[in-house]
Amino acid sequence: MNEILEIVKNANSAKNALSSLSSEVKNRALLNIENGLIASYDDIFKANALDLEYANGLLEEGKITKSTYNRLKLDENKMRDLIKGIKDVQALGDPVNKIVWTRELDENLILKKITCPIGLIGVIFEARPDVLPQITALAVKSGNALILKGGKEALNTNKAFFKVIENALNNTELYPKNTVNLLFSHDDVKEILNMDEYIDLIIPRGSNKLVRFIQENTKIPVLGHASGICHIFINEDADTNIVNKVVIDSKTQYPSACNSVETVLVHKNYPDLPGLKHALTENGVKIIENPERYDFEYSDKILALKVVNSLDEAILHINKYGSHHTDSILTENNAACEKFMSMVDSAGVYHNVSTRFSDGFRYGFGAEVGISTNKTLARGPVGIEGLCIYKYRLYGSGQIVADYANGTKQFHHKNIFGL
Amino acid sequence: MNEILEIVKNANSAKNALSSLSSEVKNRALLNIENGLIASYDDIFKANALDLEYANGLLEEGKITKSTYNRLKLDENKMRDLIKGIKDVQALGDPVNKIVWTRELDENLILKKITCPIGLIGVIFEARPDVLPQITALAVKSGNALILKGGKEALNTNKAFFKVIENALNNTELYPKNTVNLLFSHDDVKEILNMDEYIDLIIPRGSNKLVRFIQENTKIPVLGHASGICHIFINEDADTNIVNKVVIDSKTQYPSACNSVETVLVHKNYPDLPGLKHALTENGVKIIENPERYDFEYSDKILALKVVNSLDEAILHINKYGSHHTDSILTENNAACEKFMSMVDSAGVYHNVSTRFSDGFRYGFGAEVGISTNKTLARGPVGIEGLCIYKYRLYGSGQIVADYANGTKQFHHKNIFGL
Repeated sequence: MNEILEIVKNANSAKNALSSLSSEVKNRALLNIENGLIASYDDIFKANALDLEYANGLLEEGKITKSTYNRLKLDENKMRDLIKGIKDVQALGDPVNKIVWTRELDENLILKKITCPIGLIGVIFEARPDVLPQITALAVKSGNALILKGGKEALNTNKAFFKVIENALNNTELYPKNTVNLLFSHDDVKEILNMDEYIDLIIPRGSNKLVRFIQENTKIPVLGHASGICHIFINEDADTNIVNKVVIDSKTQYPSACNSVETVLVHKNYPDLPGLKHALTENGVKIIENPERYDFEYSDKILALKVVNSLDEAILHINKYGSHHTDSILTENNAACEKFMSMVDSAGVYHNVSTRFSDGFRYGFGAEVGISTNKTLARGPVGIEGLCIYKYRLYGSGQIVADYANGTKQFHHKNIFGL
Repeated sequence: MNEILEIVKNANSAKNALSSLSSEVKNRALLNIENGLIASYDDIFKANALDLEYANGLLEEGKITKSTYNRLKLDENKMRDLIKGIKDVQALGDPVNKIVWTRELDENLILKKITCPIGLIGVIFEARPDVLPQITALAVKSGNALILKGGKEALNTNKAFFKVIENALNNTELYPKNTVNLLFSHDDVKEILNMDEYIDLIIPRGSNKLVRFIQENTKIPVLGHASGICHIFINEDADTNIVNKVVIDSKTQYPSACNSVETVLVHKNYPDLPGLKHALTENGVKIIENPERYDFEYSDKILALKVVNSLDEAILHINKYGSHHTDSILTENNAACEKFMSMVDSAGVYHNVSTRFSDGFRYGFGAEVGISTNKTLARGPVGIEGLCIYKYRLYGSGQIVADYANGTKQFHHKNIFGL
């Protein structure tokens, strides 16, 4: 049996033990990771320096972009946020074995819908090595097993982080072995994508190209988004102070983020379009009117601007060209706000705020494994809740279906909790 | 543009209007369907008689099985259950626009997780024409648009049902047009499976072969299960009265159902194995000990029987050979019950009851669109709740991310409701 298959099969077997793990054991494992990161602070930065040295060469040769280089680089702020994030995840409630609802089907026949881990999750990530401890923390808390596959550009940093995690978990009494694994070779990606028998979910973290490649090459469900074409619609009655502030934040606070705005739709009767254009230009934003295509992510200080005749036209535009990620309406009209929020088919629909709020930390999830535009799984920023599914538990005392089928007994379906 | 693509595109455009539809309009549409079925009772049976005449020929030629013929045949009981089911769905609460939770991120910055329809759902079904009105009722209540593709063996019955539905929806004031559509030709299936740009979810209802074909030939998420290999584990301390009653019901009450038991695992110290074997034989069940393979669905009065050394061995066997559908433990030991329920990775884990309870009607969902073994979407019997996803609504007053990034403001993440 090849080595990767063996790792994946072992992780798959080990995952069952995770589903019944107590909150105490999981939090102890997280505390060990937190302490390990603090203790290995210098080693991690040394490892990162090696990766940066190599990346610097690639940067000079034009093989990677400055933004890839920046994502690769750890600094004290990133490490501080990372360690704080792992502390925050410990403070969150246990998302596993939570009773969603309880219904009495008949006397002594109790049905409970209960949360449980998804199982074995494959994470394929590029550049950002801080993804590794962050996703591991969420997986530990939610009782999921992990196959992590990092990019070669962050090889040394990933190894340093993984060493901390491996030690932390091995030193956590009762924590099952083989549940968090790191793979290295680039060839591993294709192999992982074929292991639908063992892997329950794939989470890609990286370029649109990487995400699309994964979506097109696996039968395993993929959690994430390939592009982030977010919109702001400025209604005729929008508050001009809010408009300029929010549009500029949405575009310039981090232009390459997936939740940055790409297209601003302006109602034809909005009175201060010149003021908005002026503010954008002053902030270094290039405005493109009548672009060739609207389904385009600039990921830069560039945005498409379109004047529309109505709220309806704006909703149609967003649902047609958007990526169902995050879209905001700026208006003082509640009915327009509600209509926009109901009819825009996106994971995040906002009123009078920046699209940049779409983020697990800002939503209070502690951290996120990614942002999902899927319609049939977690949607929006995904924290520990999105890494759980549920099972139905039925507690009885010898009941058989024949009695209900032939009319001897009837269900009474009494809702006990959560319904 | 080809005809099917046009239908699908129209349905996709129409779906947005469904997400903001009031409960009153949806229930009026359901009442119109219910009344339509009653008014067209005779026409539906005449249509079904045509299909049965044709199917009778196929049956004589051995081209279809007796059980396919039976699934095709409507009778008064099926029609009564169908009409009652549509009445039940009206009585259920509206699953759309329900607030899952509310969190105040900061002053005047409110985040709400709110349910919404999935969107456009493609249903591909064989034989059973009663699936058509049943799934339509669930889709109407949950605000989803539908592309229905029935098998040619039920062509006339499907047309008769669809006529009722089309009239009912057209006569419901404010109900959007083009949201429920019926396709006929067999070639349509492949076309539908390629329309991942427009269709959000595929629900197959039919043979394992059909489900597997669909799973392997589409990038659209598929809700359902290909096989139903369900288990009963009889622990050493199981109540012998419960054992015989529950095993016989699980196997014989409807042997070809997906939730019938296929393998019975018996603890080596269970004292009355001879009694169980005798009872099974008396009820016409053939027992296979040491079968060639355990991942097999007999769909008949046949079951595999294996003696195991422990609860752990039973759990390993079920997770390895089962289809994560429904598995039951018979025991008087609570710790064993809890361990089984935590560690068996199935949509339904039961204690001291028949596996046959795994069903939307029995769970109190009114009806079901199918039973899902997916781990990343609805799991188990899927009613209207499983046809909804959620979106995050964020209500603000001009907040920008820059203020939180530079430390001018801090999130206070106050949980308001449901958290």
